[in-house]
Amino acid sequence: METTQKHALGLDFGTESVRALLVDLNGNEVASAVSKYASGQILDQLPTGEYLPPLFALQDPQDWIDSSSSAVQEAIRNAAVPPESVIGVGVDFTSCTMLPTRSDGTPLCRIEKLQREPHAWPKLWKHHGAQQQADRLTAVAKERNENLLTRYGGVIGLEWFFPKVLEVLENSPNIYDAADVWLEAGDWFVWQLVGAPTDALPRSTCQAGYKAMWSAEDGYPSEDYLNAVHPRLGETVASKLPGKLVAPGQAAGGLCAEMAERLGLQVGTPVSSGIIDAHAGVPGVGAAAAGTLVMVMGTSSCHMLNSTAGSFVPGVAGVVKDGILPGYYGYETGQAAVGDAFDWLRSLLGHDDHSDLAQQAANLPPGAEGVTCVDWMNGCRTPLMDGELSGGFSGLKLHHRPAHLYRALLEASAFGVRWIVECLEEAGIAVNEYVATGGLPHHNPALIQIYADVLGKSICVHPSKQGPALGAAILGAIAAGTERSGFESTEQAIVAMAAPRADEPARRATIVKPDAANSRAYQAAYAEYRQLADFLSSKRTTNA
Amino acid sequence: METTQKHALGLDFGTESVRALLVDLNGNEVASAVSKYASGQILDQLPTGEYLPPLFALQDPQDWIDSSSSAVQEAIRNAAVPPESVIGVGVDFTSCTMLPTRSDGTPLCRIEKLQREPHAWPKLWKHHGAQQQADRLTAVAKERNENLLTRYGGVIGLEWFFPKVLEVLENSPNIYDAADVWLEAGDWFVWQLVGAPTDALPRSTCQAGYKAMWSAEDGYPSEDYLNAVHPRLGETVASKLPGKLVAPGQAAGGLCAEMAERLGLQVGTPVSSGIIDAHAGVPGVGAAAAGTLVMVMGTSSCHMLNSTAGSFVPGVAGVVKDGILPGYYGYETGQAAVGDAFDWLRSLLGHDDHSDLAQQAANLPPGAEGVTCVDWMNGCRTPLMDGELSGGFSGLKLHHRPAHLYRALLEASAFGVRWIVECLEEAGIAVNEYVATGGLPHHNPALIQIYADVLGKSICVHPSKQGPALGAAILGAIAAGTERSGFESTEQAIVAMAAPRADEPARRATIVKPDAANSRAYQAAYAEYRQLADFLSSKRTTNA
Repeated sequence: METTQKHALGLDFGTESVRALLVDLNGNEVASAVSKYASGQILDQLPTGEYLPPLFALQDPQDWIDSSSSAVQEAIRNAAVPPESVIGVGVDFTSCTMLPTRSDGTPLCRIEKLQREPHAWPKLWKHHGAQQQADRLTAVAKERNENLLTRYGGVIGLEWFFPKVLEVLENSPNIYDAADVWLEAGDWFVWQLVGAPTDALPRSTCQAGYKAMWSAEDGYPSEDYLNAVHPRLGETVASKLPGKLVAPGQAAGGLCAEMAERLGLQVGTPVSSGIIDAHAGVPGVGAAAAGTLVMVMGTSSCHMLNSTAGSFVPGVAGVVKDGILPGYYGYETGQAAVGDAFDWLRSLLGHDDHSDLAQQAANLPPGAEGVTCVDWMNGCRTPLMDGELSGGFSGLKLHHRPAHLYRALLEASAFGVRWIVECLEEAGIAVNEYVATGGLPHHNPALIQIYADVLGKSICVHPSKQGPALGAAILGAIAAGTERSGFESTEQAIVAMAAPRADEPARRATIVKPDAANSRAYQAAYAEYRQLADFLSSKRTTNA
Repeated sequence: METTQKHALGLDFGTESVRALLVDLNGNEVASAVSKYASGQILDQLPTGEYLPPLFALQDPQDWIDSSSSAVQEAIRNAAVPPESVIGVGVDFTSCTMLPTRSDGTPLCRIEKLQREPHAWPKLWKHHGAQQQADRLTAVAKERNENLLTRYGGVIGLEWFFPKVLEVLENSPNIYDAADVWLEAGDWFVWQLVGAPTDALPRSTCQAGYKAMWSAEDGYPSEDYLNAVHPRLGETVASKLPGKLVAPGQAAGGLCAEMAERLGLQVGTPVSSGIIDAHAGVPGVGAAAAGTLVMVMGTSSCHMLNSTAGSFVPGVAGVVKDGILPGYYGYETGQAAVGDAFDWLRSLLGHDDHSDLAQQAANLPPGAEGVTCVDWMNGCRTPLMDGELSGGFSGLKLHHRPAHLYRALLEASAFGVRWIVECLEEAGIAVNEYVATGGLPHHNPALIQIYADVLGKSICVHPSKQGPALGAAILGAIAAGTERSGFESTEQAIVAMAAPRADEPARRATIVKPDAANSRAYQAAYAEYRQLADFLSSKRTTNA
């Protein structure tokens, strides 16, 4: 297999920046570049100056184009490889980040007369303005006994696609009217790459399956159901979702001339259908088998598992057949604030960086000397699926210092994973192995030790510091086809390009083993956490 | 009445320092001086180097002598008045701050072979090592249906006298054996001032009534009861409490030669029996009538009320007939951490002083935008009387900043007073007027506005910045007797020396009125506070 001259490109669109990762077909990193979005997260004011309501989180689509162009050009330049050596491009994206466009793909926020309307702008995954809409979608689905609920843990999340569409319909009907197309940001970017006609715009089965309640068996939610929620919401599935569904790893098309020039790549280079950033972490850590919980830990965390068993698991956000890898049921679970919460607390406690807090916290015993935290500062994703829930601390005494709260927060994050694993196991879904990836495990080794101790299991910290970007690159290589890549199967590509290998320093995983005494010590602290969580989850109606 | 040449001296022993206040017999301040204790609070290490267990809070009795000498001398010097113009001295002291001594009054911590034993040192009021002992004293009192429980809200507090004695008996029996005398720090200091023989050492009815479960009717707890708790605890009342009980305002004796020289006053100057610092605030703000809640707000808060009705109030720490002023039932309630908690949070949030936090917090709306706090960082005094309870925050979201937590804490403090007032009123004790005094009301006017809004009542902020010190001085004047002072009664002295007077700028009170809209807005926030308090109070057994 002659692979040394061939490369795959992964584009990993995060919350603040995009990473371009260029690898060879053994998965070795050749070059990498990161470009921050000029507007970053738009939380307070539109670029046009308008102030935003609370809970809004928007982005500027031009940032995705500009930053990816800059990052890819830098990576190619640094790698000093010929553009034609890139045999395929993969794209992963935050989700559900979504936007309304004209039929030609023009985002409504780029139309002058609409650009001052907040609802014309792309809504970032973490936008939390649609809780009421999510609640009504759930309530009506329950009343009508809609089948789709069983695939999503019985609750429709406020961060998902249809709640966000309904929020616009109710708050800015003119924007809803002006939208010819509603789509995921990842799909929009892939559409820009391949330049397909509107009715053939490639939509990812991953985003559709996990965020827009689409399934291979039943398609999108029915017009009847959506119209029962709002008499005009059915229009969305009837006319505002043009395109075709394409699985990650399947080719969405070839690079169009305009984007090829912007990126500095060859016209026609195969582009994979998009994938949710977290989900790209599964191939990105070489996890091609059932029973491995892949923990993609960053701003928020997404914990994914492939299983041969398809079960309804209360509170699990999505069970999608072939949703992550072909042949398996993919389970998606998550924590809404992880790195975000750590950073919030760091700032709250008046520290400029995490190092002192992390060091002092690491020196405290399990249980943080009586301080208990529940980390729902951005709501609870799994298992309660409620973005309006809030976090808390208990056990505070005058002798507690910032490091006590910080450690309690790290422990809360670990307790959240334990709760998720308990939900899966209670539903008969085996969890055999744990792999951690994303930015956090590398920056905070003490955190992974806490996870291992709380779970009582060894955790494999995958050597890749950019699992999702590598996963995207692997999907690009797969989309290029056997003839170009030499890979006979998806599994072969994943193992060759990403599985840990003890014989190669750059691929050697770190195994973090649990400490038995600490594991025992966490039993009581976990019980405290669950009690505080029960209390905080009882408060939703009074907070709402 | 010729009073201009006559003065009274109040000595106010706080947690960190002592204040000497020299006033004329109209209550006008002539001079004031503060002297910090060299060792302050001894929390981590003895002056001899030994490390302390958690929850310990000790003091050095030499500091009380040295700092009071220095403060009195400075005040007399600054006032440039002749020492013989001081007709009486009053002493208020933190309580229950207590110590073991030899029969000649020598503190055990000053005996060389005992000085390295933590239990030989005076225990500060806030020392929290005796929760288990307090629990057992309460449990046995309940079993035996001891009458004394009804005077103290049904619970014996961990900060009180007998729990602290029992803690020493159980943990350092050799110190218990070596103690000829157990006494309050205030009584010890007055004893040093007057130099009485051991069997006539003057003990304050105030400290004895509120902290040592003494009453005029029944005396100290019975030997039988104490021996049922521990077979040697009865010895304390049998032989280790020598002396006579003297009410505040009655003369404990005249200044002995040694202390007269140290302080720079005349030998024989009348000295009042001691009073608890907070209780001195009642005469100190001129409150001579029933139904006025005097809120002495500092490191912790003590809220006192005189009433013509004597009722059992669940959770109220002490109902003592003639305990504060003659002719009334005195009710003592309190909050274990107020300024202490504010300062803890300030430090936790990484701020060097309170000004920015207080300013930003004042700009937030009632309810702190969803953040709820319960301020039990030093346990709950009234109404739960449980030092092991801990504080907490709920409602935390990523958009909350330090000022949200800070405001939530200020509100928690106000909600705590509302809860106390509800307990009193449910027991039929009328609360008609509110007077705030102590350091906090003057440093933090926004705090008093929150109190007024939460209570829905006007609060009179007494102009004295040193209510307890003035109260002590008034008691000194009363102890001097009618012939020297010219006052015919206690009430006359209190009103003349401390009641607010609109016609004199230095005596003009600030009236803080409630804002009706804010009062309404706090209803929901108070309900949240009580819910969080219920949750946190349910956790005692798991935290213990």
